[in-house]
Amino acid sequence: MELVPEILAGNVAAIARMITRAEAGYAEAAPALAQIYRHTGKAHVVGITGVPGAGKSTLASSLIRAFASEGRKVGVVAVDPSSPFSGGAILGDRVRMSEAASSSQAFVRSMATRGHLGGLARSTLQAVDVLDAAGYSPIIIETVGVGQDEVEVVTAAHSIVVLSAPGLGDDIQAIKAGILEIADIHAVSKADKPEATATVAALRGMMTLGSETARSKWTPPVLPVSAVSGERIGELKDAISRHWAHLRDSGELAERQRGICRTRILGAAKYLFQRKFDERAGEIGEHIQAVVNRDMDPAGAARLLLGWTNEGQAT
Amino acid sequence: MELVPEILAGNVAAIARMITRAEAGYAEAAPALAQIYRHTGKAHVVGITGVPGAGKSTLASSLIRAFASEGRKVGVVAVDPSSPFSGGAILGDRVRMSEAASSSQAFVRSMATRGHLGGLARSTLQAVDVLDAAGYSPIIIETVGVGQDEVEVVTAAHSIVVLSAPGLGDDIQAIKAGILEIADIHAVSKADKPEATATVAALRGMMTLGSETARSKWTPPVLPVSAVSGERIGELKDAISRHWAHLRDSGELAERQRGICRTRILGAAKYLFQRKFDERAGEIGEHIQAVVNRDMDPAGAARLLLGWTNEGQAT
Repeated sequence: MELVPEILAGNVAAIARMITRAEAGYAEAAPALAQIYRHTGKAHVVGITGVPGAGKSTLASSLIRAFASEGRKVGVVAVDPSSPFSGGAILGDRVRMSEAASSSQAFVRSMATRGHLGGLARSTLQAVDVLDAAGYSPIIIETVGVGQDEVEVVTAAHSIVVLSAPGLGDDIQAIKAGILEIADIHAVSKADKPEATATVAALRGMMTLGSETARSKWTPPVLPVSAVSGERIGELKDAISRHWAHLRDSGELAERQRGICRTRILGAAKYLFQRKFDERAGEIGEHIQAVVNRDMDPAGAARLLLGWTNEGQAT
Repeated sequence: MELVPEILAGNVAAIARMITRAEAGYAEAAPALAQIYRHTGKAHVVGITGVPGAGKSTLASSLIRAFASEGRKVGVVAVDPSSPFSGGAILGDRVRMSEAASSSQAFVRSMATRGHLGGLARSTLQAVDVLDAAGYSPIIIETVGVGQDEVEVVTAAHSIVVLSAPGLGDDIQAIKAGILEIADIHAVSKADKPEATATVAALRGMMTLGSETARSKWTPPVLPVSAVSGERIGELKDAISRHWAHLRDSGELAERQRGICRTRILGAAKYLFQRKFDERAGEIGEHIQAVVNRDMDPAGAARLLLGWTNEGQAT
């Protein structure tokens, strides 16, 4: 089976197979993935992030149904190790999820979060490419917003939904350290709980403070949702669509796409470098030993390996 | 002030200043850091990892007191965004922590987790180097075990303590996805709670299953601790010291050090590459535009930037 034409025609088996090859990092898959990339750029890519337990998967599941009910083909790529989509964990959500996933209009895929030597972000975005080329839109990336890989993935989305849950205590503190500010849309789960009101108010307060420095004319809305009952999912879906329209109408999309491509090129370069490093394991043994012996520092050895020794002192 | 001789003499102000320079990524700090590196390799580096809320900071605080009471100079470097050591979050632990930190035998430092373009692991390990050269041992690295940076940091420790908390639900699931297996010592917090017994039993069961494939003669002990009351901290401290003795006596230390140096060289190379990439922002603009236009895929652009275009097709 020639995979690329089949993928462009929307063949689900071909899509699944290509994503598996991307995930495994097969060098043989590179030409096909390069070819697929040329057919991308049509989909609206939506990132959903938030700490474990906030309800990301349930929310993704509700959004699948909401978008599918408009006749759209929805893709989901999950890179959350605690996700019910993924192999490792088994949660109650799994049942609800497979129900949504079994829709003929949805393709749901979880990426293995292990065995990836820095290639997780790369293969996840390749999976998004495959779904994009196959005509899915929106494509939802679900990821826990902690760590460099995860941030790299979610900032490759056009619209970023940050999900907060009321009363998560320490976790909220952790979120504050970075991901709240990348939100295009704030969702607050467990809208039926009284604590949700305080969380919504706190986020709205933060928006007011931040608006002076914002470069965009888009003010991130703060939307309470109750993923379990599906309540207000329609509002969230509409906000996501509105943000996409805003990006296109305002011209901000072009800038965002340049940022995404920049990050992807850098990510690819690092991955390629790591692969070469792994392949040359024998050759670099003496450099490692010199660093073990404290005859050389790690940066010095790195400069040697990069062939930068004649460029003078640069840390 | 000539920083390096002062650091080697244990001057706390000099240590703090050098860590700040490492954190800021100043190119001017590189020669001093390279010089400092040559004086390292004496300290026992201990990693403490576990999900937010497990009680890592409280545990680190108790361990500072336990080691300091033996007359040792203890260093702590925290890279957990939810850590009370760090600027972002304010938790009740902060008071307890400063109490331990104010001891003249302890140096406690939290690394900023923002503004780092992939340099977090690098500057954290440079902070450990500074403390090592200044005669601190053990040096405790406290980090949440999620994400590539954090894993890179913690695997640079000689002894890895993974802290589990009973009843954390989803978080435990997340931990299972990777960090449990890197533990040299398991600690279970909240030993006074009845659920702790089940968690200890589950971890011990896992150890039994895993022991057949283990390459080391060390079987990770599973130790209940109650960080709040300081109960059983002595047992944990002894296990950490025993693991260090095991590494040296068994010859496993040499292998581990090679692994650590290998990771650090690779980390430094990636960091240096990223810096060069950032500096050449203008020059690479046309490559970015080609990727935005789908005339080229990210891997193709990366190969061009690495100067690998003549090496044939390698993904």
